[in-house]
Amino acid sequence: MNAYPKITLVGAGPGDADLISLKGLKALAKANVVLYDALVNEELLEHAPQEALRIFVGKRAKNHAFSQQEINKLMVDYAHSHGHVVRLKGGDPFVFGRGGEELEYAAKHGVETSVVPGVSSAIALAGLQGIPLTYRGISESFWVITGATTAGVISQDIYTAAKTEATVVVLMGLNKLTEIVRVYEAEGRHKLPIAVIQNGSLPNEKVAVGTIDNIIERAQVNGIGAPAVILVGEVVAKHEIFEAWRHKYIAV
Amino acid sequence: MNAYPKITLVGAGPGDADLISLKGLKALAKANVVLYDALVNEELLEHAPQEALRIFVGKRAKNHAFSQQEINKLMVDYAHSHGHVVRLKGGDPFVFGRGGEELEYAAKHGVETSVVPGVSSAIALAGLQGIPLTYRGISESFWVITGATTAGVISQDIYTAAKTEATVVVLMGLNKLTEIVRVYEAEGRHKLPIAVIQNGSLPNEKVAVGTIDNIIERAQVNGIGAPAVILVGEVVAKHEIFEAWRHKYIAV
Repeated sequence: MNAYPKITLVGAGPGDADLISLKGLKALAKANVVLYDALVNEELLEHAPQEALRIFVGKRAKNHAFSQQEINKLMVDYAHSHGHVVRLKGGDPFVFGRGGEELEYAAKHGVETSVVPGVSSAIALAGLQGIPLTYRGISESFWVITGATTAGVISQDIYTAAKTEATVVVLMGLNKLTEIVRVYEAEGRHKLPIAVIQNGSLPNEKVAVGTIDNIIERAQVNGIGAPAVILVGEVVAKHEIFEAWRHKYIAV
Repeated sequence: MNAYPKITLVGAGPGDADLISLKGLKALAKANVVLYDALVNEELLEHAPQEALRIFVGKRAKNHAFSQQEINKLMVDYAHSHGHVVRLKGGDPFVFGRGGEELEYAAKHGVETSVVPGVSSAIALAGLQGIPLTYRGISESFWVITGATTAGVISQDIYTAAKTEATVVVLMGLNKLTEIVRVYEAEGRHKLPIAVIQNGSLPNEKVAVGTIDNIIERAQVNGIGAPAVILVGEVVAKHEIFEAWRHKYIAV
């Protein structure tokens, strides 16, 4: 093949296949190769031409976890050999998606890139649950933090965030829920509303809503597993079932 | 008409009409009425049925600024009189979009609602400029803050944010750029990279890239006006023209 080498980073959205952008669909329709991650809805692959290669590079692959370096190399190699590579990434490519590293690698190897932003789970999953990230008089900001730092500990930013009125969104942090709860407890914020959402935007979506004091139990009772988004802040009380929980909690 | 009253809050994306989600397009195709804001790309209205009402409720209307209360009422009244109202909002409905207030008003009046999240300018415009909001070893979080608080002063959160390593995104804050710069100066962060993006994702997009020390001049030279997004943090140095500016700046 002699197709012009080009890489398009496309945000696939939070899970629901209809939450990809029209622009993302158009990029897929012109793909020679699609490299896609574990959290990407595989229904989206149907939008690529029949003859396009579809390659799973998810880090959850059973027998082999692709390193970022391997993904970078595959991306550039396929661009050179096949032409237009669509790098299809869950949510938005730059929200803990290492899209920045992929852009740099491509640039270093002289391959043209473009970007199609995505609907990020950091923002979308709250809204789908009727939780507004910002609300006049309640929250003037939201702070999105990774739960999975390179060092394996929770981000220092969570300690600072717990002192503020910002709505806090933690991605990839379910296995750090207890530590996060401890941080808020240390600030005396036991009654602060918190929600945990698993598989947001998908038919098997699950949610647990409570306060810092009881969210660990609530998440267990509701059987919440990864991947999940954690939302902390007064805006969580806008969730339709929150008042019911609060009432139950206070009654206990 | 006897159509079933229903309101769908749809995020229209940051400007480029192709950055609406497929789900948003499907909602528009089933609209009896579309209530749309000033920052919504009017090309999107073509996706609604020909007979659908299209009503501009932007707060920039010349002769009349619709209050939020008026918009809420219009939305519910049209749902009762016409059926399916699509409330088409710039970016994502819950990122300073007062989507929360609209959901509450609809619920109070017994009208069924659903939500279609959008590509938020808070996230997308950085990525389109090749600026990753998060980057391993540089930024573990990003903090999105309004530049336009109800009180008319800059948010207290900006003072806290300026002390952290979080990437900071300020929406609707261009007329507060000088105050924001002062906050970072007070923290001694004169060389921190900062970018200002106007009309992001549109053909008339403009960007200014610099440091806290010179961004006000850079924004003036590049003729940046509202609406604009302000990005502050080390990740801004990933912008392709940043090193050129830094070099020029240091040379001066």
